[in-house]
Amino acid sequence: MIKLIALYKKPADVEAFEAHYREVHLPLVQKVPGLVRAEVTRIQSDAMGGETPYYLMAEMYFENEETFKQAMKSPENKAAAKDVMSFAGDIVMMMVGRIDEG
Amino acid sequence: MIKLIALYKKPADVEAFEAHYREVHLPLVQKVPGLVRAEVTRIQSDAMGGETPYYLMAEMYFENEETFKQAMKSPENKAAAKDVMSFAGDIVMMMVGRIDEG
Repeated sequence: MIKLIALYKKPADVEAFEAHYREVHLPLVQKVPGLVRAEVTRIQSDAMGGETPYYLMAEMYFENEETFKQAMKSPENKAAAKDVMSFAGDIVMMMVGRIDEG
Repeated sequence: MIKLIALYKKPADVEAFEAHYREVHLPLVQKVPGLVRAEVTRIQSDAMGGETPYYLMAEMYFENEETFKQAMKSPENKAAAKDVMSFAGDIVMMMVGRIDEG
């Protein structure tokens, strides 16, 4: 499986971020063709209970390289990408990875 | 669900890292009581095909806060934590998060 990972640093306005994320962004993500599932993790702390640089991680799962590539080219993905830049462009890092176990 | 996330930067010696990770570290992680599953993702690139700061992400899933806390206190987890410090202490970041969707 291929996974698109979005790692968000803590937003300046958490309430506004959460409202946009849940009500606008996640529904756009869920329309991306070929998306198997999306998993959203809210970071609580580091392993010792301390602060971390990140606030939220979203993981979008795709069956394979081919469906991932097709998804990235879709208008639905372009809409989701445009949206993310509009509300979190300065705090998000995107990564693509291959799942080897689990 | 609660997730323990280990984010590794690119190791200086990828081959030595991979050998230790697969043959020593992952088997130790898989012995941790209460672990539901571990998912290992090898980061390929950022969303545009460029470089990212990270090389590998491991995600350890636990049913709830209680089983997670018990797991963290176990001798098996202490052995895994000690091991990670021995081969990747300088390149790993650990985070704890709560899964909200997916």
